[in-house]
Amino acid sequence: MGNEVEWRIKAGDGSSEILVPERFGIGRIRHWIVRLGLKLLIFPKKAWELGVNDPRKFIHAIKVAIALTLVSLFYYVKPLYDGVGGNAMWAVMTVVVVFQYTAGDTISKTINRICATSIAGFLAIGVHWVANRAGDHVEPIIEGVSLFLLASAATFSRFIPTIKARFDYGAVIFILTYSLVSISGYRVDELWDMAMQRIFTIIIGTSFCIITSITVCPIWAGQELHVSITSNMDKLANSLDGLVAQYFIDQTSSVIDHESDKTLLGYKCVLSSKAAEDSMANAARWEPAHGRFRFRHPWKQYLKVGASMRSCASCLDALVGCVNLESKDNSDMKEQISGVCLRMSSNCASVIRELAKMSQNMTKSLSVDILVGKMNNTAQELQEVLKSNPINNNNDANPTKAQSSPQLVLMETFQLLTLASLLLEIAARVEDIAKDVQQLADLAHFLPEISVKALKQEKDLEGPCSQN
Amino acid sequence: MGNEVEWRIKAGDGSSEILVPERFGIGRIRHWIVRLGLKLLIFPKKAWELGVNDPRKFIHAIKVAIALTLVSLFYYVKPLYDGVGGNAMWAVMTVVVVFQYTAGDTISKTINRICATSIAGFLAIGVHWVANRAGDHVEPIIEGVSLFLLASAATFSRFIPTIKARFDYGAVIFILTYSLVSISGYRVDELWDMAMQRIFTIIIGTSFCIITSITVCPIWAGQELHVSITSNMDKLANSLDGLVAQYFIDQTSSVIDHESDKTLLGYKCVLSSKAAEDSMANAARWEPAHGRFRFRHPWKQYLKVGASMRSCASCLDALVGCVNLESKDNSDMKEQISGVCLRMSSNCASVIRELAKMSQNMTKSLSVDILVGKMNNTAQELQEVLKSNPINNNNDANPTKAQSSPQLVLMETFQLLTLASLLLEIAARVEDIAKDVQQLADLAHFLPEISVKALKQEKDLEGPCSQN
Repeated sequence: MGNEVEWRIKAGDGSSEILVPERFGIGRIRHWIVRLGLKLLIFPKKAWELGVNDPRKFIHAIKVAIALTLVSLFYYVKPLYDGVGGNAMWAVMTVVVVFQYTAGDTISKTINRICATSIAGFLAIGVHWVANRAGDHVEPIIEGVSLFLLASAATFSRFIPTIKARFDYGAVIFILTYSLVSISGYRVDELWDMAMQRIFTIIIGTSFCIITSITVCPIWAGQELHVSITSNMDKLANSLDGLVAQYFIDQTSSVIDHESDKTLLGYKCVLSSKAAEDSMANAARWEPAHGRFRFRHPWKQYLKVGASMRSCASCLDALVGCVNLESKDNSDMKEQISGVCLRMSSNCASVIRELAKMSQNMTKSLSVDILVGKMNNTAQELQEVLKSNPINNNNDANPTKAQSSPQLVLMETFQLLTLASLLLEIAARVEDIAKDVQQLADLAHFLPEISVKALKQEKDLEGPCSQN
Repeated sequence: MGNEVEWRIKAGDGSSEILVPERFGIGRIRHWIVRLGLKLLIFPKKAWELGVNDPRKFIHAIKVAIALTLVSLFYYVKPLYDGVGGNAMWAVMTVVVVFQYTAGDTISKTINRICATSIAGFLAIGVHWVANRAGDHVEPIIEGVSLFLLASAATFSRFIPTIKARFDYGAVIFILTYSLVSISGYRVDELWDMAMQRIFTIIIGTSFCIITSITVCPIWAGQELHVSITSNMDKLANSLDGLVAQYFIDQTSSVIDHESDKTLLGYKCVLSSKAAEDSMANAARWEPAHGRFRFRHPWKQYLKVGASMRSCASCLDALVGCVNLESKDNSDMKEQISGVCLRMSSNCASVIRELAKMSQNMTKSLSVDILVGKMNNTAQELQEVLKSNPINNNNDANPTKAQSSPQLVLMETFQLLTLASLLLEIAARVEDIAKDVQQLADLAHFLPEISVKALKQEKDLEGPCSQN
């Protein structure tokens, strides 16, 4: 900095002002280049890690490339080949645009593309025919007005939630196809041929997509949703268990490391899972029967389970805020209610884990009701303990406790009571999750546990679908 | 039901089974038709309401139609016109695909489309040139391998969060253009002409989009994000105020109606706002200076504010669960701490409202620090009240209270203590929001309140941008 020239402006009143280097000066540019270089160095490493952590991302990239190369070769080799202006283009374009990460999304886009192209094409040909008959002066007006009206209607329809969720892409393709046909200016019989060819090409393109998507390491949105809900349940249970144990059992907090910290904060994943779950459920409804899932599996119910889990996680978030979990004080009350609180949290966690097992195996569980009952009994017990003991005890104990001031003990008491209240509320919300999962079990016809055990003894589990 | 024929199967053991109507029987079809009819009847009404509630949705639909009709007419009238296979198609396609609801999204797609088309086009022409030189046998291999590698790399890059957020569409267009050019089979000089024309057409299409998007009732993602954050703050403040008042002041709970219920549950909007905020912030960073926002306004900071608000809302959610807000019991303790709790909640709400005002007007506020100080003082006071009074008092009062059982009073006490704890935690989280908003004020160079007042006296407020 020392050998840099400094520019000063002297004002009339004698004060001077240092001119700072201009915003896009050499120093700034150098700074930007260094930053860009660093980013470019880190970037490939990060990308590689992303793929190594979930190799299915690599596989998806290769699948897209396979479908694209196949469809290109198909048109390159075929005598049908007629350059980039022709049909090959539409097949390639279809593959690029339609191929998605999950099979459900690919199928959804495929169906949207084929239906929207067909409907818009035939509608445009019809309007074209009418406009042709109406005479040369009226023709552009009819074409223009119909394009305007249909484009605005289709664009507006994309704001309607049900359309947005299922037919958003279809609406875009509808506008695209309609406007392409209506400005084409071809004669109707030419148009008809072109439309047929176009639809045929799109079908070829989408077939390549769907076949590659479903046969080569398929990624089913339904399966993903199922796994995500189950693993979120485990995360929730581990967080709950861990956080309460950390407060009551000193030992755990002393050996806290990065790994266990990650476990404790698992509930945060649950809190932010809504968008991903919604999009997976949307894709899943397009998927055919796969693995243990039927067509029309109750995917919506998974969203309900997810919502209940988020509501439970948000209680846990409040708990982390309200209770100083690192506190090492051991008031009498803490000792008195630690047992029942720990049992409470581990009971809640057991219920969640049993629900996770239940949805993972897709079996009805005999023990869920028992575990919920146990949880509710512990909740009752906690209430009783709170009612009978602590407050009186604490007041008696305060004067005799030498190691902590009465103030500290009181704060500790508030924290304990808050923790207890939140635990009771968490138990209530866990019961909601249990209800939602039971409803899922009914809707998806989960097998009773006993018959599964019987089945397992006879042969390998084939899943509930084989029973319907 | 009475005159329906019932089918029974008699089994060998004498038991009989009623045959239920088959799954896709006439009854079921009739049921589906009625349901579909009902949906079709309700649908236009719902769609209309959607538009009436936010007329900008209608306006957007009309804007898209205008851009599309204009670009169609442009090519229909122009001598350039050469049918659907030619360039007109690319302009139309660009308008349909690029035009988005917010200006930011439109600009982002435009830049993505132009850059990706150019890069992929030139790269493909280069590879094509090399492949041409390499001889007829090697040419398809070079083309195929390069397509395979680039397509998989570009597809994989779409999983990388930074690319996903900013260049997702660009990656798709890159693959599309590269594969179209590489299978085109034209000579390099032909390709060069074609590429130039194509890029020129896309620039025409995107110009129509951007002009329509920015000039006709523009919808700025940044403005939307700004408004959404501000209105969420107000919702949070109203919920907080209302919920605590409902618990302590009986009067409000008796006049509860649908409208006030909506106000009380406003915090739920805050809880589920993440996805929308993320996408608006992503779009906003592409927008030029508009209204009171500079280019490179600190949109990321809005996301931080949003996250703090969600953390506060999740405490409020726990409060709604833990505390029976409809409770009409009036224990001594409730009376004793109602004053300070009500002040606590209204102080928190005042801070949030001041922050909302501050971000809405984009001015630094002198009173935020004072209000936060007041809130913290009340928090201190609440802690003092809790420490000194209630528990002792309650134990003394219990035997003499005739109207409620000691058990009930105790439950009430727990609820009160939980409420107090949660209020204290909410205050802490409100302080986090305040810190984030103050940071926003620094980053976005909000004007000091005083200079705003002075400015207002002189002339209408022109916003902070005019000061830079």
